[in-house]
Amino acid sequence: MRSINENSVGFVETKFYSCCEPPNELILSSGEKLGPITIAYETYGTLNKDKSNAILIFHALTGDAHAAGFHKGDNKPGWWDNMIGPNKAFDTEKYFIICSNVIGSCKGSTGPSSIDPKTKKPYGLSFPIVTINDMVATQKKLIDHLGIKKLLSTAGGSMGGMQALSWSVLFPEYLDSAIIIATNTIHTPQQIAFHEVARQAIKADPDWQNGDYYGKSIPARGLAVARMMGHITYMSDKSMQEKFGRRLQNKEKLGYDFSSDFEIENYLKHRGDSFVQRFDANSWLYLSKALDYFDLSEGKKLSDVFSRSLLKFLVISFTSDWLYPPYQTKQIVKALKVNEIDVSNIEIDASYGHDSFLVETEDQSRLIEHFLKRVTKEQ
Amino acid sequence: MRSINENSVGFVETKFYSCCEPPNELILSSGEKLGPITIAYETYGTLNKDKSNAILIFHALTGDAHAAGFHKGDNKPGWWDNMIGPNKAFDTEKYFIICSNVIGSCKGSTGPSSIDPKTKKPYGLSFPIVTINDMVATQKKLIDHLGIKKLLSTAGGSMGGMQALSWSVLFPEYLDSAIIIATNTIHTPQQIAFHEVARQAIKADPDWQNGDYYGKSIPARGLAVARMMGHITYMSDKSMQEKFGRRLQNKEKLGYDFSSDFEIENYLKHRGDSFVQRFDANSWLYLSKALDYFDLSEGKKLSDVFSRSLLKFLVISFTSDWLYPPYQTKQIVKALKVNEIDVSNIEIDASYGHDSFLVETEDQSRLIEHFLKRVTKEQ
Repeated sequence: MRSINENSVGFVETKFYSCCEPPNELILSSGEKLGPITIAYETYGTLNKDKSNAILIFHALTGDAHAAGFHKGDNKPGWWDNMIGPNKAFDTEKYFIICSNVIGSCKGSTGPSSIDPKTKKPYGLSFPIVTINDMVATQKKLIDHLGIKKLLSTAGGSMGGMQALSWSVLFPEYLDSAIIIATNTIHTPQQIAFHEVARQAIKADPDWQNGDYYGKSIPARGLAVARMMGHITYMSDKSMQEKFGRRLQNKEKLGYDFSSDFEIENYLKHRGDSFVQRFDANSWLYLSKALDYFDLSEGKKLSDVFSRSLLKFLVISFTSDWLYPPYQTKQIVKALKVNEIDVSNIEIDASYGHDSFLVETEDQSRLIEHFLKRVTKEQ
Repeated sequence: MRSINENSVGFVETKFYSCCEPPNELILSSGEKLGPITIAYETYGTLNKDKSNAILIFHALTGDAHAAGFHKGDNKPGWWDNMIGPNKAFDTEKYFIICSNVIGSCKGSTGPSSIDPKTKKPYGLSFPIVTINDMVATQKKLIDHLGIKKLLSTAGGSMGGMQALSWSVLFPEYLDSAIIIATNTIHTPQQIAFHEVARQAIKADPDWQNGDYYGKSIPARGLAVARMMGHITYMSDKSMQEKFGRRLQNKEKLGYDFSSDFEIENYLKHRGDSFVQRFDANSWLYLSKALDYFDLSEGKKLSDVFSRSLLKFLVISFTSDWLYPPYQTKQIVKALKVNEIDVSNIEIDASYGHDSFLVETEDQSRLIEHFLKRVTKEQ
């Protein structure tokens, strides 16, 4: 268990920012309006006098604003604690780090489990579809609220990488650089397919009740199946071999029954069941749909969307990531290079699959540390 | 639609063979007994006088005995019709082809949906766990019944390849050769993981009723989810790109709702829903478990299990098959070569993923045709 030491940001608290009160609702990509909106966020480190050391971090599908340090009474640190803190990749002695929960989620920001002020009941499926661009639009409001005119950098993996890409296209004049990790500019049919099956698993649960289950039984079985399947795609063939092999669960020999014989089976079930305690099924539906809708260039040529960019990019992928394989980040790099944009691209040799962006610390830290130093110098 | 022409075996009928009447039940790998057992099978071509031209074909998880030709009143041919027939890879002018449905299935052979003679009710979960070796043991009884002393060859892909491997180890003196396609000698944790999630999806369906659903509502939602997930693993990133891309379903633009926007979503749902009409959920549980239990060398060195083999092997894999990737068949080839066994190994360049063994006809046909000619000559 990680603990509070000289490399930890220590105890932290989630803060909340509210905006978009009617009649100033946010106009979403779909044309629908959403407001009021609450954004949960955390910050680590200190914003310098000229507000030039801010870095915005983006979480992945089931993440939250709690990226580093500890909440009081909780012995589990934030989701990227190995990367954020004094002398870590995102060095809080130097930089002011911000991480906010995306809209559509269930971790403090407005989402389908929030109370709709019009009906005084949870939105459920009446919550509008949100896109990656919509998430980014609310983050821009938060950054304005914090008085930051320009971000030193932005960074995220997976869905977080999509937000970093979206920022670089929607608000290029508001940032100096972007760190894009294990992601894609456009969701492929295979990526959509995995999500659609998970959505079908949730919808197949009779407790889902067309999204209207708040205060009743939650669709725990469907959501657990969705999470189990997701988990397979986050690991790799090799990492499963290394971590589990064909070891049996509390048994000396095959049981010849349907109780779980292999450790991998029990592990997945455990991950599915524990996920249900911490995440809302409707939020899973909304956020997976936001990923599936993601198409950075919206049908145009990818190289065209970067044409006016003066940003510096660091683009990272992992050899064993088969959910967002390295060929996809190579397409980003190609589109940037065509525009003579400053881009460093590294494919890190790691066996953890897509999860590498969360657990591979050594190479990522060195790359990000050097990149941020250079960006700071050339500001 | 394929039709009856000079390259078709024409109309065929499924036949049935019964064995293992108590007290002569089959002793299964688990130690449990099963009997009586019915085996559904089909044959194509003519057994020659010295019964030396017989080839046993094995189907994959959801396949059946109907490998080629047409059943009367049905306009869909058998599952490997593109490979079996006059002048095809398995040339019925030369060879006598046999294909039987595995035990545990629901396509005519004894399985969990069969009536247990003791209770006069469907077995359900009281059906014993069967293994690939158990399937092969019943096939051996069928071959004995047909009076065939030695098979010219055996062939199968995926679960069919495992049966071919099992035959080559259990009964090497009863065959001349084996054609092993897109398979593995031991199920990996990733392969087990995909199956376990699908099993959990079936079990999560309230209609599953611990397997006791016959004559009532079937667990259609759970089985559809299981099939959808399986289907993703049978295709490839590239084949999904080629077949669907991000084309929308009956729409000109994104719907911003949870109805299926993309064709791939609708396709998977359709495949899931239609599968439910033709396959039994309990059989899916049993057969997936048989695959997960498969370990050809049973903890021993793989090269040791082939040591006494005089067979000839043709081992085929496909570049885009990520469910049973080529590195796994290479391990078979290595174990065979260590024993100086006659093996040809080809990795076919095809984009269809694991499904390649069913749809890639050209290269497979040529390879199999030549291999069978050589084996016949050297008999």
